[in-house]
Amino acid sequence: MSKNPIVEVINFGDELLVGIRDNSHLTYLGAQLSRCGLPILRSRVITDSASEIRKAFLDAWEHSDVVITTGGLGPTSDDMTRENVAEALGATLVFEPEIEASIKARFELIGRTMAEHHRKQCYRFADGEVLHNERGTAPGMAFQRDGKLLIMLPGPSHELKPMFEKQVIPWLKSLGMLCKEDAYLQIRTCGAGESAVEETMQPIIEAHPSLNLAFCVHYGIVDIRLSSRDNLLGMEQIEAIGQEARELLGEDFVCFGRCSLAKVVLHELRALDRSLAIAESCTGGLLCDSFTNLAGASKVFVGGVVCYSNDVKVSQVGVPESILEQHGAVSPECAIAMASGISEGLSSDYGLSVTGFAGPDGGDEKNPVGTIHLGYHSPVGVWCKSVRYTGGRLDVKARAVHAALDWMRRKLRENKVEEFLSCGERD
Amino acid sequence: MSKNPIVEVINFGDELLVGIRDNSHLTYLGAQLSRCGLPILRSRVITDSASEIRKAFLDAWEHSDVVITTGGLGPTSDDMTRENVAEALGATLVFEPEIEASIKARFELIGRTMAEHHRKQCYRFADGEVLHNERGTAPGMAFQRDGKLLIMLPGPSHELKPMFEKQVIPWLKSLGMLCKEDAYLQIRTCGAGESAVEETMQPIIEAHPSLNLAFCVHYGIVDIRLSSRDNLLGMEQIEAIGQEARELLGEDFVCFGRCSLAKVVLHELRALDRSLAIAESCTGGLLCDSFTNLAGASKVFVGGVVCYSNDVKVSQVGVPESILEQHGAVSPECAIAMASGISEGLSSDYGLSVTGFAGPDGGDEKNPVGTIHLGYHSPVGVWCKSVRYTGGRLDVKARAVHAALDWMRRKLRENKVEEFLSCGERD
Repeated sequence: MSKNPIVEVINFGDELLVGIRDNSHLTYLGAQLSRCGLPILRSRVITDSASEIRKAFLDAWEHSDVVITTGGLGPTSDDMTRENVAEALGATLVFEPEIEASIKARFELIGRTMAEHHRKQCYRFADGEVLHNERGTAPGMAFQRDGKLLIMLPGPSHELKPMFEKQVIPWLKSLGMLCKEDAYLQIRTCGAGESAVEETMQPIIEAHPSLNLAFCVHYGIVDIRLSSRDNLLGMEQIEAIGQEARELLGEDFVCFGRCSLAKVVLHELRALDRSLAIAESCTGGLLCDSFTNLAGASKVFVGGVVCYSNDVKVSQVGVPESILEQHGAVSPECAIAMASGISEGLSSDYGLSVTGFAGPDGGDEKNPVGTIHLGYHSPVGVWCKSVRYTGGRLDVKARAVHAALDWMRRKLRENKVEEFLSCGERD
Repeated sequence: MSKNPIVEVINFGDELLVGIRDNSHLTYLGAQLSRCGLPILRSRVITDSASEIRKAFLDAWEHSDVVITTGGLGPTSDDMTRENVAEALGATLVFEPEIEASIKARFELIGRTMAEHHRKQCYRFADGEVLHNERGTAPGMAFQRDGKLLIMLPGPSHELKPMFEKQVIPWLKSLGMLCKEDAYLQIRTCGAGESAVEETMQPIIEAHPSLNLAFCVHYGIVDIRLSSRDNLLGMEQIEAIGQEARELLGEDFVCFGRCSLAKVVLHELRALDRSLAIAESCTGGLLCDSFTNLAGASKVFVGGVVCYSNDVKVSQVGVPESILEQHGAVSPECAIAMASGISEGLSSDYGLSVTGFAGPDGGDEKNPVGTIHLGYHSPVGVWCKSVRYTGGRLDVKARAVHAALDWMRRKLRENKVEEFLSCGERD
């Protein structure tokens, strides 16, 4: 095996080509493998057709050192990876009674018998390994020839992931393939656009010609990935550059790694031992959801009200009817009343609120679709802020949630809350 | 151009290979193109390296009729698609003053001047077309040679999508490439696992040897895609088979197409002219979010309370303290009190509630992590239901939301609400 093995991933499955689902397997395998120093160089998605499977597999096998396939190992008629890869390799498949016993046991557990069409899953390469599937019927397979590795994984995520982490990673480790760790650092920023962030980083780019920068943008967040061209910079140097970057970025710096904005806010509130309540209208639950995705959220987040109708704004959040009459529900005044009202009503230290028009309908001359008003109630004062976004309903919701969280993060920092730097993980 | 042109997509970008983001471009282009009869046969993801870009592009250009690339057209140093594809093609790039003028105008709008590094974006193929970018600086490109087509799109989704829909689709149409529409039908089911659904479909599979079935599973939903092998079945025949499938699937049939469960429930409540309120604990806003993602939700959904703490369950949802003391917050009794309490408190006809342990902490012997209790309050009665899931916190939240929505859908149907069949779109 060469020193920098070429890793290629082939995802089999029509559903990835006809727009039914994102190729999250590639994302998962990319994260896993780049973390342990075996980055994926190439990847392809192939339709469920015997000739395409054979052609793509042979091409990958010729040009790469490690080939990982996903999908097409199931019992159904559109599952044809095993047979076609074996044919392309000229490898023999043999019936393996142990696989059959394990599938039978699985069905017995739920009081059923194994159907005939599962028999095709009971084959393995004559000179290969079986990867046990603890969550489903399709076993994985591992195979070595001429210093090349083939790893075949089942399609369902919840079957693929434990198989990869518990069996494939240890196997790759035992072959000595996971020794060198990639040197890279993620920096999360919010508040400036991609090209503005790159402009800010310009002095760093000029000072470090071996530095590689990659940018990734999503809903107002700009992530920067610092890495080294040709391994010329070590982790220590990249971390020192990361500190320079942090100073240049100023308040737009969110954290090292890729913590969610909600996690940063939650962390700072926990450090303060303070609680938070939320009142949200147009974001409709997404802001609360971003907090409750985090383990341990209940120590800070007491709850929230999705006050979609005006009646609920009055009855559950305590917005005065006079404000709704005079300024309307989409107004800075209402945002402030929501933030203070929810904080008082739910007895929390902080209150955060969002009201606006997410579209596609609604809006008026003063507040067109995409207009968002934010309210912030804290022990040291009450503020509001207005922003405006273009895009579809879901885009506006996501941008509004990021805007609310980023604003609260800045407000907490202004008020001298100890700065959050990293969640302790590089990613 | 052959009658069934081979379409290949190349996504450039390290971020897709190191686990930073899902390849949603492929999903989007796959949906767009399969809908108009030009399905993608192959796709690959390539690292940002000059030699890899050239190699992959040449291979695709040789073996395909239509090549679509995404990414690498920006102004930053990791953007190198334009130059390397031109080199591989042996095509000349020429400076296009119109592109420069449009980028300059973009910057003037926000009171800035165009930075020097944007100059590299001002080039086009000498004998190709420019695709105007209405949302960013990177123009796309279109190119024809020897009956083959090349389409190059920018990386950011919000730039790629309008360019594709407003310029690329009309161009492909003008070339006569989008005439034949694929015959296929999507069916959404919920309530049975993938292999049980396939077993139910067995009589149909046996009766129609030319039928192609593909299954796709996510959080309790199983989607079936019916299509034809080698175009042997027309759309009418596939639709007739879809009706047979619907009868076999019984209550597990959700709809034709891929409407969300929330959309089905919303539709049925609109038909009844009834309103809904939600009280959710462990799902933390995600259930409300699933409704508020839908345009027009405010006609049915009045609001919800994310009652994360017990205090909020009592004060905002009206759960009696005695129930919390006797049965705890994770109990069928509390779920029922939440459903009725929110319905009364927010004056809605229906109330839906979720309480449980999403993990990773919490839970006890009686209610381990993953236990979910659902409550349903309707004008004709009050019910509860309990389920249990394995998996991480986010998995349990997503499964619990689907369970609540699917259960409400069935309850509405039991109570003779007119059945929802389709949202009028095939996808």
